[in-house]
Amino acid sequence: MKILVCQINPTVGALDHNATQIVQGIANGKNKGADLVLFPELCLTGYPPEDFLLLPHFLQMVEEKTHFIATKTEGIAAIVGLPRKNPQARGKPLFNSAAIFSDGKLIGYQDKTLLPTYDVFDERRYFEPALERNIFSIQGFQIAVTICEDIWQPAGLLGPIYIENPLVDYRKKKIDLSVNLSASPYSLLKIEKRIHVAKKAATYLKTPLILCNQVGGNDSLIFDGYSLFCNEKGVLTQLAQGFKEDYLFIDTAKPAQNFSFKTNEIKDLHEALILGIYDYFHKLDFKKAIIGLSGGIDSAVVACLAVEALGKENVLGVAMPSRYSSKGSVLDAKILANNLKIDLKEISIEGPFQSFLELMHPHFNEKKTDVTEENLQARIRAIILMALSNKHGYIVLSCGNKSELAMGYSTLYGDLSGGLAVLSDLTKYNVYRLAHYINQEKELIPKNILIKPPSAELRPNQKDSDSLPDYKIVDQVLEDYVIKHRSPKEIAMDHKYPLELVLDLVRRIHQNEYKRRQAPPSLRVSEKAFSVGRRFPIVQRWI
Amino acid sequence: MKILVCQINPTVGALDHNATQIVQGIANGKNKGADLVLFPELCLTGYPPEDFLLLPHFLQMVEEKTHFIATKTEGIAAIVGLPRKNPQARGKPLFNSAAIFSDGKLIGYQDKTLLPTYDVFDERRYFEPALERNIFSIQGFQIAVTICEDIWQPAGLLGPIYIENPLVDYRKKKIDLSVNLSASPYSLLKIEKRIHVAKKAATYLKTPLILCNQVGGNDSLIFDGYSLFCNEKGVLTQLAQGFKEDYLFIDTAKPAQNFSFKTNEIKDLHEALILGIYDYFHKLDFKKAIIGLSGGIDSAVVACLAVEALGKENVLGVAMPSRYSSKGSVLDAKILANNLKIDLKEISIEGPFQSFLELMHPHFNEKKTDVTEENLQARIRAIILMALSNKHGYIVLSCGNKSELAMGYSTLYGDLSGGLAVLSDLTKYNVYRLAHYINQEKELIPKNILIKPPSAELRPNQKDSDSLPDYKIVDQVLEDYVIKHRSPKEIAMDHKYPLELVLDLVRRIHQNEYKRRQAPPSLRVSEKAFSVGRRFPIVQRWI
Repeated sequence: MKILVCQINPTVGALDHNATQIVQGIANGKNKGADLVLFPELCLTGYPPEDFLLLPHFLQMVEEKTHFIATKTEGIAAIVGLPRKNPQARGKPLFNSAAIFSDGKLIGYQDKTLLPTYDVFDERRYFEPALERNIFSIQGFQIAVTICEDIWQPAGLLGPIYIENPLVDYRKKKIDLSVNLSASPYSLLKIEKRIHVAKKAATYLKTPLILCNQVGGNDSLIFDGYSLFCNEKGVLTQLAQGFKEDYLFIDTAKPAQNFSFKTNEIKDLHEALILGIYDYFHKLDFKKAIIGLSGGIDSAVVACLAVEALGKENVLGVAMPSRYSSKGSVLDAKILANNLKIDLKEISIEGPFQSFLELMHPHFNEKKTDVTEENLQARIRAIILMALSNKHGYIVLSCGNKSELAMGYSTLYGDLSGGLAVLSDLTKYNVYRLAHYINQEKELIPKNILIKPPSAELRPNQKDSDSLPDYKIVDQVLEDYVIKHRSPKEIAMDHKYPLELVLDLVRRIHQNEYKRRQAPPSLRVSEKAFSVGRRFPIVQRWI
Repeated sequence: MKILVCQINPTVGALDHNATQIVQGIANGKNKGADLVLFPELCLTGYPPEDFLLLPHFLQMVEEKTHFIATKTEGIAAIVGLPRKNPQARGKPLFNSAAIFSDGKLIGYQDKTLLPTYDVFDERRYFEPALERNIFSIQGFQIAVTICEDIWQPAGLLGPIYIENPLVDYRKKKIDLSVNLSASPYSLLKIEKRIHVAKKAATYLKTPLILCNQVGGNDSLIFDGYSLFCNEKGVLTQLAQGFKEDYLFIDTAKPAQNFSFKTNEIKDLHEALILGIYDYFHKLDFKKAIIGLSGGIDSAVVACLAVEALGKENVLGVAMPSRYSSKGSVLDAKILANNLKIDLKEISIEGPFQSFLELMHPHFNEKKTDVTEENLQARIRAIILMALSNKHGYIVLSCGNKSELAMGYSTLYGDLSGGLAVLSDLTKYNVYRLAHYINQEKELIPKNILIKPPSAELRPNQKDSDSLPDYKIVDQVLEDYVIKHRSPKEIAMDHKYPLELVLDLVRRIHQNEYKRRQAPPSLRVSEKAFSVGRRFPIVQRWI
């Protein structure tokens, strides 16, 4: 059997556009002589469609597009991820489904059994689990159709969170091929897990397995693609590209060899962020980004990523020195802009800063200079960037990293402003790793930026280390507390940190929830981002 | 049987504090001669506990507190809402449960069957539904214990979203009394629905029913209390107070009469917002609020509510006139502050505004004055309020209403700043209704504020109606599109609006998702707030 795996990049809600992409994929399959074309999970709506799934007129249009797609499958078969109405009288009104088309007709649906409702996933909000699991016969091939999570049990990575394992049913039946439609989002090294899952499922079912994954950025989620083919022995034999649309042609009759693949964690992270920026801008019909260049590492990395994603002509850097800025900072920003060949404006914040200090002086009641004056500077910079954004149609890229966001080491309505927070799911350590990767072939980021100690330069001779412990400790607590849900006591014991220090960091994480609630949308790259998939209250007294 | 219904106000995560409240309620019951004391759903953790439920060390502490509470029930029985571990090897690791204590021992659990996973509820993220429904014998009384949603099916208000109806089981059994532990949040007129639900459940089960509800504000959600007792004929016989802690003493042996209750929609709304503000501040250990008084209706209403919630000595008004402010506006703000007996600062934004205009002029490329200059003014005001907040420890109250938020008629990092958005789930119409209610006994809000046409005063002679259709139409589209999920076509036909107008408004609602994503947390008072319970992507191409 010949199969074309269409790893497409749908846009959420764009039913016309997505249906057109699907129809083009089908035509592409016909041209290439394929018997079957595959598409990702919920690709007609784009994943995640969120509350569009609650709008009856949206669902009506989904049905119309489903019938339209059917008419385009004459002489070929296609399996397309889309929502469908639950025909039962009770339960959630939808299934997360795969529509199976053959020769111009919709021949059936296979609904998803395991509906992830954790982290960034809310599938039980909308869907009822599958009531039955069928085998579909296409060109004499007996095919088991599963959707994403359905094949994740044999690998043992999920924990025992589901009562059912849909593969148990399939294992009892005669199957020639199993296909899995996915919308499995990227996080660091996720592809290794996903390959492992596919191999385990293929060996469990003793059948070749094709996984067709979505690619592209939708809000905070980045889908990495990497669609794949595994044989019945669990050997990976074909792999689509990561982070771009790709079409994988599979001929099950041809003997396949082991596909040798080695993950490059930081290369993938780099591509993920570029794709995330690109899709955020282009799916919103924006082209141009503006970035405050402080001379620090975060804004330097964001500028490099933005240039890759949007082109140097579409990126504007703005250096906004204050009375506390070192000369080195502005110089470093200039060298960076020069290396990247982007425009750089220099706008001193001294005028408005002085004006605010004078205006507010009578209202500060002779209180000492404190964080108020620091925040003032950060907010004046945000006003300048937003004014340029409003006047000229730029999206402001926010540059804070995850370690700062955890600690609240950022100013609400100041550096915590922007349309997209590019690095807010990267630890400080990962920002450095990414910077070194960017500089691998050519020194784009001036060396001085890489070696100087981090500073917000909001008061004389300020260093991040004045008010924060070593970023290594912050990052470790992020990994252990935020991602792994370990207790402060366990963290302190394991790493031989003072318990009070760990408790202080965990307390800061919770106390700064109020800032993160108003932070710009981020690009998720870790297993647990602050922006999506982590839900803690602002008002709480646990810690 | 004598029962004390403890309508308490727990704080999320505050296990020590909440356990103490529970133990005090039990002691209170003993003093009053009760046989049984009841507490709300998940009151040990506070509702909603969100991702605290994912932390093993949090759950460990829940278990310890559960055993501690048991020791305090000697000579009495108590039913307490709390999470418990799922003892099965598979499925979500927790149940949303009611622990039944009697005479110093934990005698059993009744788990919740219907787990709401829609709107503001995410219960399937954490919980597995009950596997069985048991009857508990307390003092010879056969008692059915249900949790919130479990009794909502007979009233027919949920739609057919669940496959099971747990009351079917109970109806077959001999029951003397049914008790329901709830954490049912307030929205306009919700109490009427909840009473209807209780009556229907009582008549369905042919047994008296006690509903014990949580009270208090936790982040955006306000719980209204109003715990109640219905007899087996569905007659409401006792009702606890709304919007405050209350203890309802029920003696099932005493003949009960119809309790006559009439909802006052706006009085309840007023109390809800005051409770929401009070709890937000006090549970965060804050006392003082600062409000930008524009001379408009929204900030006037917020000031009145803040004074009720926090006391006049804890509220600071700031008038921040610009070159475009009318004299009337500052005067109206002064009269309002005078009426409320709150301090008022007047800080002109002219200095920083002029400073920014000069600074930015060379970078605006001779482009015409537009929304940029309007946003500048709003952002300067936010900087002033935030500087006072930082220096003196105020929380900034944000004043925008839901109609503005829908249309994006607000400035990100400008008037859309603050720790709490008090009115952001009230339509403009409801803001006016509330203002008239506030003025009922005494004119607190100057009449001029009530009668002048709404204006942001960010350019000469500006009126909201310059760029927005009549608020009546905006509010109708909010009701029909955002709450009822009706299509633009249906809305246009029903109300005889031009379709293009409705489409334009719906488009604006979606296009301004990016602003709302960074808006301050709100107080939810409608069936569908923008801030919680409504999930739409920023990047989308549906409309």
